[in-house]
Amino acid sequence: MSAWVKKVHFDDNGLIPVVVQDYQTNRLLMMAWMNHEALLETVKNRIGVYWSRSRKKLWRKGEESGHTQIVHEIRLDCDQDVILLKVEQVGGIACHTGRENCFYLRLDTVEGTDELQWNEVDPVLKDPETIYQQSHE
Amino acid sequence: MSAWVKKVHFDDNGLIPVVVQDYQTNRLLMMAWMNHEALLETVKNRIGVYWSRSRKKLWRKGEESGHTQIVHEIRLDCDQDVILLKVEQVGGIACHTGRENCFYLRLDTVEGTDELQWNEVDPVLKDPETIYQQSHE
Repeated sequence: MSAWVKKVHFDDNGLIPVVVQDYQTNRLLMMAWMNHEALLETVKNRIGVYWSRSRKKLWRKGEESGHTQIVHEIRLDCDQDVILLKVEQVGGIACHTGRENCFYLRLDTVEGTDELQWNEVDPVLKDPETIYQQSHE
Repeated sequence: MSAWVKKVHFDDNGLIPVVVQDYQTNRLLMMAWMNHEALLETVKNRIGVYWSRSRKKLWRKGEESGHTQIVHEIRLDCDQDVILLKVEQVGGIACHTGRENCFYLRLDTVEGTDELQWNEVDPVLKDPETIYQQSHE
């Protein structure tokens, strides 16, 4: 195993959290997980590859939607247990809901009360059904 | 339990990852974890409070260093299992190493080879010993 890989601390499940942001605007796009294999493939091909915890397999993001992530920079944090990818988001859509990014729920006060609620504050740029239909053409 | 809290998916350990970014520059500062109590306190006081997995207790960030995080916005992702805090980082230092942020290790090619290595690319702004001595004055 290469020396640089040994510095990366995977958790007890063999995974490490990955924060993904736009390389130009710094806007946060999504958070995902990588295992050892996903990290190696990402580094080799400079395209974002993750580990899908729900599907329990490698997730080559954009494989179906075309919305790949071209990796411009890879960083590691002080504890070596979180990765940051600075990427160019092809198609401008990182979220499976058809939005630019996954963090579109904002905690706001309900007007005239002291109650709180999550409001959808970012627009859907493309119908998710359209996004995934394309891949089967 | 309030309706907005019920929408937040904590993991099997009762934790949720939290990405923290500067509310003006979008620069990524750190990633941490919250339990239910940390989230409630953060929302109530608008100051970043986390769960320290190593110390197994609430971590009121800045309590010792003075480097608190004033919360400007709280967001939740599409799966409701990652939180984003947009904060004003008091003192301009989020990392315990005395740097602005924790992601100061960049994966670079070693010149003239095809080897990779992690390089420290962001400066230490304040000696960590100075940061934590202050708290005991």
